[in-house]
Amino acid sequence: MIYLDNAATTFPKPEMVYEAVLNNMKNYGANPGRSGHKLALEAGRVIFKGREMVCRLFNIDDPMQVIFTCNATEALNLAIKGVLEEGDHVITTSMEHNSVMRPIKSLENNGVENTVIQCDEAGGLNPRLIERAIKENTKLIVVTHASNVTGTIMPIEEIGEIAKRKNVLFLVDAAQTAGVYDIDVKNMNIDLLATAGHKGLMGPQGTGILFIGEGVEVKHFKEGGTGSKSQELTQPLMLPDRYESGTPNTPGIAGLTAGIEFILKEGLDKIRKHEEEITSCFLEGVKNIPGIIIYGKQDATKQAAVVSINIGEEDSSEIGYVLDKVFDVGIRPGLHCAPMAHKTIGTLEQGTVRFSFGYFTTKEEVKIAIEAIRNIKEEVI
Amino acid sequence: MIYLDNAATTFPKPEMVYEAVLNNMKNYGANPGRSGHKLALEAGRVIFKGREMVCRLFNIDDPMQVIFTCNATEALNLAIKGVLEEGDHVITTSMEHNSVMRPIKSLENNGVENTVIQCDEAGGLNPRLIERAIKENTKLIVVTHASNVTGTIMPIEEIGEIAKRKNVLFLVDAAQTAGVYDIDVKNMNIDLLATAGHKGLMGPQGTGILFIGEGVEVKHFKEGGTGSKSQELTQPLMLPDRYESGTPNTPGIAGLTAGIEFILKEGLDKIRKHEEEITSCFLEGVKNIPGIIIYGKQDATKQAAVVSINIGEEDSSEIGYVLDKVFDVGIRPGLHCAPMAHKTIGTLEQGTVRFSFGYFTTKEEVKIAIEAIRNIKEEVI
Repeated sequence: MIYLDNAATTFPKPEMVYEAVLNNMKNYGANPGRSGHKLALEAGRVIFKGREMVCRLFNIDDPMQVIFTCNATEALNLAIKGVLEEGDHVITTSMEHNSVMRPIKSLENNGVENTVIQCDEAGGLNPRLIERAIKENTKLIVVTHASNVTGTIMPIEEIGEIAKRKNVLFLVDAAQTAGVYDIDVKNMNIDLLATAGHKGLMGPQGTGILFIGEGVEVKHFKEGGTGSKSQELTQPLMLPDRYESGTPNTPGIAGLTAGIEFILKEGLDKIRKHEEEITSCFLEGVKNIPGIIIYGKQDATKQAAVVSINIGEEDSSEIGYVLDKVFDVGIRPGLHCAPMAHKTIGTLEQGTVRFSFGYFTTKEEVKIAIEAIRNIKEEVI
Repeated sequence: MIYLDNAATTFPKPEMVYEAVLNNMKNYGANPGRSGHKLALEAGRVIFKGREMVCRLFNIDDPMQVIFTCNATEALNLAIKGVLEEGDHVITTSMEHNSVMRPIKSLENNGVENTVIQCDEAGGLNPRLIERAIKENTKLIVVTHASNVTGTIMPIEEIGEIAKRKNVLFLVDAAQTAGVYDIDVKNMNIDLLATAGHKGLMGPQGTGILFIGEGVEVKHFKEGGTGSKSQELTQPLMLPDRYESGTPNTPGIAGLTAGIEFILKEGLDKIRKHEEEITSCFLEGVKNIPGIIIYGKQDATKQAAVVSINIGEEDSSEIGYVLDKVFDVGIRPGLHCAPMAHKTIGTLEQGTVRFSFGYFTTKEEVKIAIEAIRNIKEEVI
């Protein structure tokens, strides 16, 4: 199959990711941070190394500020619900994924107000609108680094500057950008960074990351065994233990660590340039097919390697079905768990046919996909 | 290393577990339940198969009642906090792990009362004490199926009968028993069953299970993308989606599915008999060393394959250190994240040296461990 669904999860992973997972499971599959024997210590070391790798990638000082979660959704829930309390106000955008929108909507029941900044039809965000929405009780700004529907890259540096100046916490959802785009939590004034481990970071599914900036108070929502302060019946408040109760996903984190090592070895620039080239190639190809609607910026330097299209008014799911069955091209049609983003770009009813590329996507694959779209277009209209 | 720390996580796993993880990652590493293409559907199928395997193992009717979590701790938090509300009363035992005790203690701040039933010095529980503790506002009874410190098996059938008769919900923590002991949610009147995927079920770390009985209302604490009802900004209430936001640990669940297949193929009886034999062999061996204190029932038919000992008044961590460094035997010393259990058996200060066995533990390994204990005993006293 030609796999063009990398915004859902990257596939394949680098060989060293598979090897790291298997090596952990087969050779030191003990419980990290629990016992003190050799295998347990080795398992603990790979997790600590993972934290260090995350630090290197995002310019974080202290590995203890890196929390491993089971996915980006958990990281976002933890950050959003851990920070916001009754009477607080949160600002977000109309391009967010349900992993941001649903927690924020649910907090309305707890007396947390929200403002959703309307983005333009290409998914673009004017940071001044965020600044203007800040009120006395605004505690948090939550913005995706790039839309999972249109790929549109958000001006997070400018928002970080605003957040810092206004003394508001800033949470970035980097699920679509980590491992491809430069993210520097210090320079960008990011207080909380949530991301998936299995997308651009090339780790296995079942992994996510939350960075918690110094002095940011985040409530936990799970308690349990932490391997620390075992004699106490209350959750220890030290990081990262406070947020990592129970046995972690050690093989997953071992794989994620290898994924980040691979990225650091290749270099973000090389990875991003490849993805830009692929995206550019795809955009040019589909622009040449009459009757194809392309959403978003339509500019590979202004969007992550995600392109949403439609073929006239055809149902996106049907196009997805044909791409899979007839052309062996795997994409994701529909709403991509981001209904407000689809409302923003005008596709809430139709959904879109989303193509998303990765570091291992080749131009040949993209060309086959373009030809498939052309064929479907000629068939249906 | 002679690995006798299976209560923390079983190691090694069956070969087919490694193969299932790798096969998922390499051959169909797509995002399940999100897109509709072949690889995504195949990933979705392995997860559904996993739910079916769990159903077969625990006599559950509907695969949709099986929730996959990242570990047993998450499953327990979800069950305990999802069920209990202000004004409710919960009953538990003094042998519980911190993954039960800490959530229950934290709920005191939300106006949830608790009663902790005192177990005897061998970790045994008199179910009549539970019955007597039931009050008008008692909503939930939480009991471990077997202690992770002494292995003591709890009378869950009798407690289930009491819970049913008194119309109180019954949550069983099966982290130390699933995959080894018969668990039948119907016959045992279990409303909620939480367990780890990486212990007796032989799956990878990063997996846990919560069974939610029909009609049991459990609040969720995470919202996000579910791949269902994507157009809505509120969390869908259908099972299992309600509790499984975001990308699941597909390789982990694939491995867990293979682990349960392995168990069903071998048969619980064969597995349990092997573990009983090994435990018996160890108990006999250490009973013959003067000066060794053995905790718990000291009867392989009344305890899971977990034995806690001490060598006189020696610090358990030091014994653990010597066992690892000198004898290459990996065990877990200390409090095992269960301080009240240690208080119950009188070892809150000293901790215990915990040996825990698995299906792959051999008698030869046990004999080496016994000799190591004998050697240490002769050295230190």
